[in-house]
Amino acid sequence: MVENKELYKFFAQGEKFFQPGISIDSVIFGFHNNQLKVLLTKLKYVNLWSVAGGFVYKDEHIDDAATRILRERTGLSNIFLKQFYIFGDPRRSDRKFHVNRMRHVGWDADRNYWLLKRFITIGYYALVNFTNVVPTRDYMSDLCDWYDIHDLPPLIMDHGDILGRALETLRTQLKYQPIGYNLLPQKFTMPELQKLYETILDKKLDRRNFQRKMLGYDILNRLEQRRKGGAHKAPYLYSFNLKKYHRALREGLAGGW
Amino acid sequence: MVENKELYKFFAQGEKFFQPGISIDSVIFGFHNNQLKVLLTKLKYVNLWSVAGGFVYKDEHIDDAATRILRERTGLSNIFLKQFYIFGDPRRSDRKFHVNRMRHVGWDADRNYWLLKRFITIGYYALVNFTNVVPTRDYMSDLCDWYDIHDLPPLIMDHGDILGRALETLRTQLKYQPIGYNLLPQKFTMPELQKLYETILDKKLDRRNFQRKMLGYDILNRLEQRRKGGAHKAPYLYSFNLKKYHRALREGLAGGW
Repeated sequence: MVENKELYKFFAQGEKFFQPGISIDSVIFGFHNNQLKVLLTKLKYVNLWSVAGGFVYKDEHIDDAATRILRERTGLSNIFLKQFYIFGDPRRSDRKFHVNRMRHVGWDADRNYWLLKRFITIGYYALVNFTNVVPTRDYMSDLCDWYDIHDLPPLIMDHGDILGRALETLRTQLKYQPIGYNLLPQKFTMPELQKLYETILDKKLDRRNFQRKMLGYDILNRLEQRRKGGAHKAPYLYSFNLKKYHRALREGLAGGW
Repeated sequence: MVENKELYKFFAQGEKFFQPGISIDSVIFGFHNNQLKVLLTKLKYVNLWSVAGGFVYKDEHIDDAATRILRERTGLSNIFLKQFYIFGDPRRSDRKFHVNRMRHVGWDADRNYWLLKRFITIGYYALVNFTNVVPTRDYMSDLCDWYDIHDLPPLIMDHGDILGRALETLRTQLKYQPIGYNLLPQKFTMPELQKLYETILDKKLDRRNFQRKMLGYDILNRLEQRRKGGAHKAPYLYSFNLKKYHRALREGLAGGW
């Protein structure tokens, strides 16, 4: 099989190309049908899923590696991507998983083999527009697809912890940074924006408080159009004011210190 | 010299003990005389200073390594310490600095020597009570002391960038987390707390807005005592309500979503 040859090549030659002991794991969030989704790959030869991971080339900036891995899995470039934590427990690696995978493609590793040594992984999270993503697996995996964060398949190693911390970071970010430009379509109603916040926070918010607070942030343009179809009173459409949105990303939302 | 022997030993044997390609750099902040200070060490054989740095033992959790390095420099354990960024530019290392230092102690390294390879550094920042710290240098440095962030000596490699990003993170943190417990004495007045915020933000704040907002966070206890001495009207003393303070650290300040 061509794919197994690629995997064999990775095992045999990876040490020449990749920075030792460092990996990247990116939690890619999307929003669809009022659900918060995460992009996962099913790894070959095991019944376990992984967030979007990869390695860093020896002369590659870690942020460039994260961008490259994200592009490989989604087809997208130029999207919101942020470091959020480094997972540095010396016992986090699963040697058995690697050894099992190597056996499947006929690679025989000794104890000092690079992939069996300790790896520290850098956690990134990304917010992407669900409808623009083409989930793409590679030779290490059988599948790449979206999963609702409330209904996840079994995850490898500490990837449950990585996903949980990414979600926690996203929730904290709502307190001081705008969010939504990468997750919503270009035009949206206030109830749609509220639904996004409610989905991320996993709780109901008061409609009037939400609107007051959101308008207070001064990052929205109210459009002349209203949402057509549906009930009697069509809600207004909004879009983000990108100049103000990006200023708020840099300087924090109005209402801070 | 005994110290040069220690440094020689580090060059000769470090590769056996330390995780390759990973270092820790901690920006240690203190508050004294209404100045925000940072703890720096002057490195041997060069006129350059460094934030509190070190390496990670092969079986050591990265957070434990950061705690250990902090204890070595300050004498303190159990203090506020937080990862804030990973510096992963492949060109960030200064080979000449290492080679020069090695020459001084008579260690001859080839191109494949561990310390001359690429290092990715994990940035932590710490908030400490200035008066409790005993600045302590090690065999790699001539001095360890506090410096006002507005009056810094020349810094090695990307340590200016590391320090700048730590400060930026601290400022952002003011927007959604309580701060001050580790920086102020146990009892303080509202003007003293305001001065801390003004010093970190490097700008004046309105007295009444500050007090209203801070009391709204509901993390302070007003004590029966007032500050004695000074002008006519002695200001009230406050302390942090630690139970509420720690809840706000976990869940964010009141007033968020």
